[in-house]
Amino acid sequence: MVEERHEWATSLDSLLDQVWKRLARGVADRRAPARHPTLATISTDGMPQARTVVLRSADPTTAIATIFTDRSADKVDDVRAHPHAALHVWDNIAHLQMRLLADVAIKTGPLLEPIWDNLSHHARQCYGFQPASGDPIPDGLRYTKSPDVAAFAMLELTIQRMDILHLGYQHRRAEFLRNDQWAGQWIVP
Amino acid sequence: MVEERHEWATSLDSLLDQVWKRLARGVADRRAPARHPTLATISTDGMPQARTVVLRSADPTTAIATIFTDRSADKVDDVRAHPHAALHVWDNIAHLQMRLLADVAIKTGPLLEPIWDNLSHHARQCYGFQPASGDPIPDGLRYTKSPDVAAFAMLELTIQRMDILHLGYQHRRAEFLRNDQWAGQWIVP
Repeated sequence: MVEERHEWATSLDSLLDQVWKRLARGVADRRAPARHPTLATISTDGMPQARTVVLRSADPTTAIATIFTDRSADKVDDVRAHPHAALHVWDNIAHLQMRLLADVAIKTGPLLEPIWDNLSHHARQCYGFQPASGDPIPDGLRYTKSPDVAAFAMLELTIQRMDILHLGYQHRRAEFLRNDQWAGQWIVP
Repeated sequence: MVEERHEWATSLDSLLDQVWKRLARGVADRRAPARHPTLATISTDGMPQARTVVLRSADPTTAIATIFTDRSADKVDDVRAHPHAALHVWDNIAHLQMRLLADVAIKTGPLLEPIWDNLSHHARQCYGFQPASGDPIPDGLRYTKSPDVAAFAMLELTIQRMDILHLGYQHRRAEFLRNDQWAGQWIVP
């Protein structure tokens, strides 16, 4: 038996443990691969959409992850119409692809004020554009920023399924399901 | 007027030109960011899906891009049911997010034999798994590879829309549409 690139990839438990470690690293470290996942949604006209987001939290106990967004962003319209999303990370350090399928809830309002209060002046610049995000403008800079908690929203992703692929000397792929208490099942890559 | 991080981001024409340059770099250079886009599709049960793919071609004249896949991969089932995809690239060198929305055609059979003949032995190992990709197996390595042109497929992505975001000293975002001959329109980031 050939030794594997990462010993943790050889059992379901340690593979899942590693997924949560890599996600936690993304939350804590702005240079970690999981810092910037791709969020895929379905637009109001039924088309797939994908964009980079910043991972703000990832809790292994509840299997809930969060991201922040401008309330006018297309992803908010998307999940309002179709409350599901895929969160995708390719971690080139761990040689690990993480495909998380989640139900999405949109959080806004007073609930978010404690989070808003903790954001830096710089971070707040991302929330509150005039005109609204996505509106046509005659020139690339013909917009203003008016940071406003009313323009701030959080997407809460309740993960239902994880499809995990490890690119080792031999590839391993596993599926983990919430409704199976994350026991895991090996599947063909 | 403050100088911009990248002069090419300040006009629609040069921005679009840069998009095609970055995509071409991805095709030619395995270390370029556009080498490994994320492909988002809609699964047969109507859920968003996303996974890393390898960009094989990107032609500015036709605005068609291609990727290769195992015929049993879930992305093939997805686009058979719903022939649209989003191809997403975050290019951290150009500070450029490229969101390409495309119609997808599945190519298989004798048409692909010239491409197959040019693949290395190593590359062919990605096409032809027993059992089929995604099937449950009792252990992570309980599968075999039998490279087979019959298991090889190409997804041809006819790009219809590009949503391009440049993260400069000030952010600029533009939308380019096939049915507008790619003239482009600035939109609010």
